Amino acid sequence: MINSDVITKSNDAAKANLDADYDALGEHLDRRGVDIAQIKTKVAKYGVAVPSWGVGTGGTRFARFPGAGEPRGIFDKLSDCGLIQQLTRATPSVSLHIPWDAQPAADLNSKAQEVGLTFDAINSNTFQDQPDQEHSYKFGSLAHTDAATRQQAVDHNIACIELGAQIGSKALTIWVGDGSNFPGQTNFTKQFERYLDAAKLVYGALPDDWTLLTEHKMYEPAFYSTVVQDWGTNLLIAQQMGDKAKCLVDLGHHAPNVNIEMIVARLTQFGKLGGFHFNDSKYGDDDLDTGSIDPYRLFLVFNELVEAETDTDFNPMHMLDQSHNVTDPIESLMVSATEVQRAYAQALLVDRASLVGFQNDNDALMATTTLKHGFRTDVEPILAMARLENGGAIDPVSTYRASGYRSRVAAERPAVSAGGGGIV
Amino acid sequence: MINSDVITKSNDAAKANLDADYDALGEHLDRRGVDIAQIKTKVAKYGVAVPSWGVGTGGTRFARFPGAGEPRGIFDKLSDCGLIQQLTRATPSVSLHIPWDAQPAADLNSKAQEVGLTFDAINSNTFQDQPDQEHSYKFGSLAHTDAATRQQAVDHNIACIELGAQIGSKALTIWVGDGSNFPGQTNFTKQFERYLDAAKLVYGALPDDWTLLTEHKMYEPAFYSTVVQDWGTNLLIAQQMGDKAKCLVDLGHHAPNVNIEMIVARLTQFGKLGGFHFNDSKYGDDDLDTGSIDPYRLFLVFNELVEAETDTDFNPMHMLDQSHNVTDPIESLMVSATEVQRAYAQALLVDRASLVGFQNDNDALMATTTLKHGFRTDVEPILAMARLENGGAIDPVSTYRASGYRSRVAAERPAVSAGGGGIV
Amino acid sequence: MINSDVITKSNDAAKANLDADYDALGEHLDRRGVDIAQIKTKVAKYGVAVPSWGVGTGGTRFARFPGAGEPRGIFDKLSDCGLIQQLTRATPSVSLHIPWDAQPAADLNSKAQEVGLTFDAINSNTFQDQPDQEHSYKFGSLAHTDAATRQQAVDHNIACIELGAQIGSKALTIWVGDGSNFPGQTNFTKQFERYLDAAKLVYGALPDDWTLLTEHKMYEPAFYSTVVQDWGTNLLIAQQMGDKAKCLVDLGHHAPNVNIEMIVARLTQFGKLGGFHFNDSKYGDDDLDTGSIDPYRLFLVFNELVEAETDTDFNPMHMLDQSHNVTDPIESLMVSATEVQRAYAQALLVDRASLVGFQNDNDALMATTTLKHGFRTDVEPILAMARLENGGAIDPVSTYRASGYRSRVAAERPAVSAGGGGIV
Amino acid sequence: MINSDVITKSNDAAKANLDADYDALGEHLDRRGVDIAQIKTKVAKYGVAVPSWGVGTGGTRFARFPGAGEPRGIFDKLSDCGLIQQLTRATPSVSLHIPWDAQPAADLNSKAQEVGLTFDAINSNTFQDQPDQEHSYKFGSLAHTDAATRQQAVDHNIACIELGAQIGSKALTIWVGDGSNFPGQTNFTKQFERYLDAAKLVYGALPDDWTLLTEHKMYEPAFYSTVVQDWGTNLLIAQQMGDKAKCLVDLGHHAPNVNIEMIVARLTQFGKLGGFHFNDSKYGDDDLDTGSIDPYRLFLVFNELVEAETDTDFNPMHMLDQSHNVTDPIESLMVSATEVQRAYAQALLVDRASLVGFQNDNDALMATTTLKHGFRTDVEPILAMARLENGGAIDPVSTYRASGYRSRVAAERPAVSAGGGGIV
Repeated sequence: MINSDVITKSNDAAKANLDADYDALGEHLDRRGVDIAQIKTKVAKYGVAVPSWGVGTGGTRFARFPGAGEPRGIFDKLSDCGLIQQLTRATPSVSLHIPWDAQPAADLNSKAQEVGLTFDAINSNTFQDQPDQEHSYKFGSLAHTDAATRQQAVDHNIACIELGAQIGSKALTIWVGDGSNFPGQTNFTKQFERYLDAAKLVYGALPDDWTLLTEHKMYEPAFYSTVVQDWGTNLLIAQQMGDKAKCLVDLGHHAPNVNIEMIVARLTQFGKLGGFHFNDSKYGDDDLDTGSIDPYRLFLVFNELVEAETDTDFNPMHMLDQSHNVTDPIESLMVSATEVQRAYAQALLVDRASLVGFQNDNDALMATTTLKHGFRTDVEPILAMARLENGGAIDPVSTYRASGYRSRVAAERPAVSAGGGGIV
Repeated sequence: MINSDVITKSNDAAKANLDADYDALGEHLDRRGVDIAQIKTKVAKYGVAVPSWGVGTGGTRFARFPGAGEPRGIFDKLSDCGLIQQLTRATPSVSLHIPWDAQPAADLNSKAQEVGLTFDAINSNTFQDQPDQEHSYKFGSLAHTDAATRQQAVDHNIACIELGAQIGSKALTIWVGDGSNFPGQTNFTKQFERYLDAAKLVYGALPDDWTLLTEHKMYEPAFYSTVVQDWGTNLLIAQQMGDKAKCLVDLGHHAPNVNIEMIVARLTQFGKLGGFHFNDSKYGDDDLDTGSIDPYRLFLVFNELVEAETDTDFNPMHMLDQSHNVTDPIESLMVSATEVQRAYAQALLVDRASLVGFQNDNDALMATTTLKHGFRTDVEPILAMARLENGGAIDPVSTYRASGYRSRVAAERPAVSAGGGGIV
Repeated sequence: MINSDVITKSNDAAKANLDADYDALGEHLDRRGVDIAQIKTKVAKYGVAVPSWGVGTGGTRFARFPGAGEPRGIFDKLSDCGLIQQLTRATPSVSLHIPWDAQPAADLNSKAQEVGLTFDAINSNTFQDQPDQEHSYKFGSLAHTDAATRQQAVDHNIACIELGAQIGSKALTIWVGDGSNFPGQTNFTKQFERYLDAAKLVYGALPDDWTLLTEHKMYEPAFYSTVVQDWGTNLLIAQQMGDKAKCLVDLGHHAPNVNIEMIVARLTQFGKLGGFHFNDSKYGDDDLDTGSIDPYRLFLVFNELVEAETDTDFNPMHMLDQSHNVTDPIESLMVSATEVQRAYAQALLVDRASLVGFQNDNDALMATTTLKHGFRTDVEPILAMARLENGGAIDPVSTYRASGYRSRVAAERPAVSAGGGGIV
Repeated sequence: MINSDVITKSNDAAKANLDADYDALGEHLDRRGVDIAQIKTKVAKYGVAVPSWGVGTGGTRFARFPGAGEPRGIFDKLSDCGLIQQLTRATPSVSLHIPWDAQPAADLNSKAQEVGLTFDAINSNTFQDQPDQEHSYKFGSLAHTDAATRQQAVDHNIACIELGAQIGSKALTIWVGDGSNFPGQTNFTKQFERYLDAAKLVYGALPDDWTLLTEHKMYEPAFYSTVVQDWGTNLLIAQQMGDKAKCLVDLGHHAPNVNIEMIVARLTQFGKLGGFHFNDSKYGDDDLDTGSIDPYRLFLVFNELVEAETDTDFNPMHMLDQSHNVTDPIESLMVSATEVQRAYAQALLVDRASLVGFQNDNDALMATTTLKHGFRTDVEPILAMARLENGGAIDPVSTYRASGYRSRVAAERPAVSAGGGGIV
């Protein structure tokens, strides 16, 4: 975390321009019949969870190029996440990944309190082998042909729930890489039956006020088939499990050209939208910064969410899930949290009464123009003012750079050497 | 239909080679522990329905280039379909498309009997406007915002059921183009609710022994969203309707790279696989000849079907659905029916006991090799012998060309001028 | 065209808000060191050509649903185009499509002058058969196996040049659908050799100050291979032809996920970028309204164009190419012209000096933030003020609707019945 | 390598069946006018290079699950490669990857001679950082903004040439991951200019009888843009460099749905096809076993190669490039080499005189049927007989398993622990 003087100094320099921009936008929105203060209030309350693994530099199967000051463990990670929240006031919680982040609950809670964070959904990991692990996940985990391997994966998920319960998490997120690389390697039906049987054991261990979030993904690490390949299979899982089971949508886990916002609408309609992993992608599960490639698509997702907001039971979880390979992860996460807020604010600006009218009249041109009117409004002054009033930074990145945080932690944390998978 | 002498003459010329090939294959399969006669018997019983619209030359939005002897209506179409069955013995039934094929049931039945065919699933059409139609489908049909338009579409589907009931059909296939071209043009959820409400009215009119087949498709004619865009939504429809509702899988209606055989497995597992529209594609819904682009994918679909065959309740409907833009449609349909049989025969050759063993052992290499052993076996002698013994032609295309059928009907049927949409 | 009183009245009602928005934006940009007037001047000079075929309602292979007042021919089309220019002041020229628009040059010139338009690139059509045509294009045109058919296509292109020369066009755009639907149908190499030979004959007939624009497209109407399938082949054509030959980029003609802005950069770098067909797409060559699906991608294309603007020889042609299936084509073209201008204005706002610095420092986060700063600025006041000062409408769509133009021409022009290809 | 007794014993058990299959196929082909011995001779001469890195277990960014007996370095790798050649007689050469395989040339040559192999193209690596490396490749190598980093990459490539010259290589293959993850991160044009400048330095160091092979790839590890993203850019590189520069086509490096065989034809036509990296893929650069996903596509590539074979100057290099994540790499490489031979043999069976006739007549159906006639012929007996007569194994996989090689080397080579990138 950084000294509040740095923030104050940075904000003081930017305040006059922000005031001017905010006032001008307020007047403009007033001419559109929108109260800027109401939008700001909603934005100010909005938060997205940060993934603990996101504060380290990511990589590909070809190589990983670490940066300076890589976090050495979950406590360093929580420090970095605390700083993100300190500057953006948009990321009040952290999502842990077990076993990497497994530490005594008391220590986790204490550190979280210290840095001003709470814990969001907890994530299990059965797509890697750990040094002390009895059964390998090379050929699967929850859906493995071997019963003992499946049980090991079930036990790990239950352990995640137990830890999560002690740190205030209310959801378990499961993503498995189980699948196959060759036609015939696995029997699709039997594999899915095994998955369902194992998942039911996990579901059975879920506290009453918890949600089981299952994540679908088209491919990678399996390159011919993946057991939970799309929202159709994910929906079947949630249906088979029960009311506490819902689907998690990662924006990068779909086939090319798929209309993701429509999947969001369908899952919402049938009560099975559980949450999001926000990121962006151009090719596959690229895990790029949210909104960096197709910001309009992100807006269209939030358009669905704002549409559904009036339903009081509708409360999907929001989390970032990105891989930061060429940027400072702290900067990417700050900007990404802001981009999520931006899409939310833009969606709030849509004139929904008019939109409904145009839709009913099949006035496609005016309907889409109405949506884009929300999107093309520059809501940055609203986001910045919400940050400022919440105690954050008008410009998180420049404030962060001014703080010298990265070089400070680089001095404390040993350098990590670059690595690579050695695969072409 | 053509004179049986033509067939006999053609078969006589090819018989010796076929016998030699069949005997050699029989000996080879015997060494693999497979009885060729059993495979031949299964192939001989296998049939795929022909689409009535398939015997006319297809086109694109850019142009349509008709061939000689285009059928003038359903009775010409049934003649062409009868010929396909006469030569291939693989296409015992025809699937009608209403309103194009709407004629008195007695006349349809009489003609079908004359040419040796029965009627498969009946298809409704609410993606075009007919000259006498009260409400336009420009903005949708079953999911239109206007209640009267929806009712018109419902009524049309019920009329299709009524006609179908008189000609022996046992299924109604619904595909709608309803969707949108612009973000915001339609409310995804309300549009789907309207679809479900309308579909329930159709479902309610279904005789007890009928199946409602709904077809999903990613895009086209709607280019931003389609109300039944994928198997996830299709599954929801079948679930909402009831036991008589199942999903139809058209091989060309998916997003790029999607694992179609896995969708087949999932729908089978949950009792919701209703049938197929077979074709092939490289880019989108190209409606190319079945097996012409990716024959291994077709085989993998049949691998799932053979896998599920032991379940006596499993009986999905099989239909070709192709657009023949540059070939003689009769030839394309004959070859395509043969390709479907080929994939079936290849899938029957897979050593399933070994496959299960390799799958249980996670021996991916041997599992996939076992599958491919079935695929790479040249089963043409089995297909040809089955045709011959059923009274068809060893080589349908050369026999058809020798018969002079096309020039004969070209003389009877007036030439159709080329047309084009005039759209770039 | 509509009475200027309608425009005046409409503008008067909107002027006060525009002034307020424009002033506020001017002050904001001033704080960013940008002179709003300079941006406005550039926008005001910017124009994009309208396709003559775009003012009629488009369709798909499944159906076409015409609207009221469909233009009866090129003179009606020019009237509609004139109106688009009257209201937007962003579309000073029209691109003709021959043979549809073939009329005596004097009449075309006279009508164009009347409606205040000039003629942009002229387009040939060899993907449809015309009633009086000797050789069919069913199996190709410039690349057909038959020499006489190729010559017919060459002659048609030369006739287009001749007409174009009389109406002030300076470019011929060639797009052919030549390709194949089946592996093996055509020999790729021989087909391309035939294309090159024929194209050279057309190139030889080109006046000195003309450009030959060739267009690539991945697929449709050919569904296995297309002779000019991508920019690689298009580049080879331009190289083989000579200095007057350049590549035209249609935004919807690429494989899924392709980075189009990079293709723009490559063609620019090697002096072979000839022009654009602007539109948008989600799945294939959807021909949706420009900027309606992925406005950021459009911006990134314009970012490349602005980057290259300093090169005085760089002058690619800009044209809309869309299919308006569910909107009033006039409205869609007006909005699309505005969207092109919007992307241009946003790209002009990018702080290029800073961008270069961040790129040199590999500061990916600040580089992309700098780009997006341009994109997220709401430049609508600039566009509207430029229109207003050029004599157009602040809000073209509402002004158009107020004018009653559509109902007026609907009364004059006979209704067109809906049609459909009849293909599933 | 394994004892020849094992091979003899295995072959003895399989010989009778092979003879029967081979004779039957010979008779069948004779009826088609094809001499089986001629096909066998061509197949027997055909070889594909094995990648040194391919004999180790591959992985993804999520995890790597090593198998038993992982090679400890290039000498172990050469042993494994020697065994592959011993059993398949289809992989006479190995392609090295530097710096991993960098060892004294004399030692490499000695070991290669010992295991009966030669060296194919040599591959440089500038997509990872090595421990002792002065400049990081995090932001690029040959196209880096920093001149010293570019020079380091150039020097490395020249060092590869120097080593290659001592071990009999005749080509350098360059693939770089240079690109960007964010719009704006890099200037496309300047980055490519830097690439070209650096590549020219490498090209200048090339011996006269060498070929420079450059490889394009759409994405990964860069997820927004890649400097050599497709064959268009790759062609420009080869054109800019000179006659010794050619393009390498990796089957998995293209956009979805792209017609790869057509790219092969285009590069061949313009003298710029340099070679292949064979593998298969369903989604992206999956590096699956050749022919495992779409064997017909592989056949269509070989159809182009056989088509061009008559040109005596046409001699592209053939190499496997795969990642074996769930199989024994030795088994996968043996099967893959066989699949490449299979596609070659099938392509040799195509009746090219008939094909040309059908193409000239636009008889699409018979043209494609002619191609598929080659494809659907089961050529396994030809491949097996060629192996047998060359001293290899009729069934390489079962012979290998019988040999106990894997457990033997597992005892000699220390176990490698599983690892994972820890990235979601």
